[in-house]
Amino acid sequence: MPKPSIRTVAVVGAGVIGRSWIHVFARAGCTVRVYDAKPGQAESAIAWLERDLESARRRGDLTAREARARRVRVTAAATLPDAVRGVGWVQESGPEDLDLKRAMYGDLDAVTPARAIIGSSTSALDMSAITAGLAGAGRCVVAHPVNPPHVIPVVEVLGGAATDAAVVRRTMRFLAAVGQRPVLMRRYVPGFILNRLQSALVREAVDLVASGVCGVEAVDDCIRDGLGLRWALMGPFGVANTNADGGVAEYFTRFREAYHGLWATLRTDVRFDDELVRRLARETDAMLRAPLADQRDWRDRMVGRIRRLKAADPLRPAGRPARKRSR
Amino acid sequence: MPKPSIRTVAVVGAGVIGRSWIHVFARAGCTVRVYDAKPGQAESAIAWLERDLESARRRGDLTAREARARRVRVTAAATLPDAVRGVGWVQESGPEDLDLKRAMYGDLDAVTPARAIIGSSTSALDMSAITAGLAGAGRCVVAHPVNPPHVIPVVEVLGGAATDAAVVRRTMRFLAAVGQRPVLMRRYVPGFILNRLQSALVREAVDLVASGVCGVEAVDDCIRDGLGLRWALMGPFGVANTNADGGVAEYFTRFREAYHGLWATLRTDVRFDDELVRRLARETDAMLRAPLADQRDWRDRMVGRIRRLKAADPLRPAGRPARKRSR
Repeated sequence: MPKPSIRTVAVVGAGVIGRSWIHVFARAGCTVRVYDAKPGQAESAIAWLERDLESARRRGDLTAREARARRVRVTAAATLPDAVRGVGWVQESGPEDLDLKRAMYGDLDAVTPARAIIGSSTSALDMSAITAGLAGAGRCVVAHPVNPPHVIPVVEVLGGAATDAAVVRRTMRFLAAVGQRPVLMRRYVPGFILNRLQSALVREAVDLVASGVCGVEAVDDCIRDGLGLRWALMGPFGVANTNADGGVAEYFTRFREAYHGLWATLRTDVRFDDELVRRLARETDAMLRAPLADQRDWRDRMVGRIRRLKAADPLRPAGRPARKRSR
Repeated sequence: MPKPSIRTVAVVGAGVIGRSWIHVFARAGCTVRVYDAKPGQAESAIAWLERDLESARRRGDLTAREARARRVRVTAAATLPDAVRGVGWVQESGPEDLDLKRAMYGDLDAVTPARAIIGSSTSALDMSAITAGLAGAGRCVVAHPVNPPHVIPVVEVLGGAATDAAVVRRTMRFLAAVGQRPVLMRRYVPGFILNRLQSALVREAVDLVASGVCGVEAVDDCIRDGLGLRWALMGPFGVANTNADGGVAEYFTRFREAYHGLWATLRTDVRFDDELVRRLARETDAMLRAPLADQRDWRDRMVGRIRRLKAADPLRPAGRPARKRSR
């Protein structure tokens, strides 16, 4: 992995998402300053990082030396100005509340070095709304990760109306350099790309259970031993392409009426009520009898292994021979 | 893997799905007879199997001895009665046309041994309609695989109105014994479970591109380097469970209004027209520059590796220690 050109970053907001970002930047070799308005939160996030590095070391994914190197790159900052001094990137992961975000961006813009980019982990807000009237709106950009970003690489990138095009380009390069997969959006839409796709699938999953077609476990089996095995490798367009000898054009031509017909039967009035939530929880608990911490640890190490499989044997364009990778 | 109790099977209909079923049954140690009404089709399917076994042997997934053993279990049958003589299971993978299916089930029921189960690969039809008025309706069941079944294990199982409950239970056991993951449905619904889930995601994927939010590659990146990495391990309920410290109950309580709000913005009037199909094909081709055969071969070997990772290190229930697996 080439070293990122930005060497010092601030993580502002050190909850579940923020603490995982610390991991991403420290892994990439950046100096990381952590700030959270809540006293003790930055220290808690760093303690979590220490435990996670120790787990990785114990299962052999990391040498003790590399674990130490990552840990020493990270410090808690007592104040926001301390956190952002000399940084090239700020990853803001505060609460999803427009008024709080607007106040936070006012504070951040006032103390952050002029050339630094301010990226937001927001999963819902429009950067145009967050930075309306802000002097430094040009350097603010959405950089929305998937939970947890040190495990799942996708980051959705979208500027606001006032964001400089060069800032968006630098953001794409920087996120790739720290080992993430930046995905560029062309305009704001609620839920961005990833949560829209997920919510469409979740609505149908919930309806299948709510309407008595099958149980929670049948739905999850169909994903983890069915669709998800392909989707770890290819998105819906890649899958469509491999499902007809004539590729996507043949697939969507041959099955367009089948899709139109099926879409007409998908219910749109699905609603969570307390009884449904209790039922989903009951069936999910019966299916997943491992402790939650074990479930998460298993997810993280297995995703890491799948990513290493893909990195070691990527799908190569025609005529591009296998070669040793530098990372 | 314990040996399946059914030792001899017929694969009737030897197109893309049927030929992959040959692979499943031969791998499990069954004697397989292949019949297709179209002359030469059974032989073509067996030639494909030979090439696929040879590829697996070359990449070290299979010994030469095991490849030979699988090949010699498979023979082409000249007639339907020859194919089904003495079998315990018929996997029917004919065209998705109700009248053709009804005629086929009349023929099959007349010549297939009374105790044998007739399973259909249909992805769309209701077994109640296929077997209405058929003497042997009690032994007919939907066993719908995902393409290709020798790579992806999920099989959706659903009886018709007249199907014996014991036949459904035997089907679940047999499919598990041949290494698949049978998933039981409680009632018929168009698209069953898996294609409904897939179509919900595909509709939103197509709309994101059609409405200019992002390109094909951004959608596929969000799945293969985002949601799909989790979905290879957990379905939507397992993912929801790991995304809140209080599990599914907390997740769906905390985010229910966010889901309701997002669902209200998902378009339902998405339609494929020729121009959209051409655009999707153009962008998909630009993204996937490998030959289609390479894409499929990569998918198959990588899915195999992900499945082996999961088999070697499954998520274990609380208190269940790691142990050597017998398969």
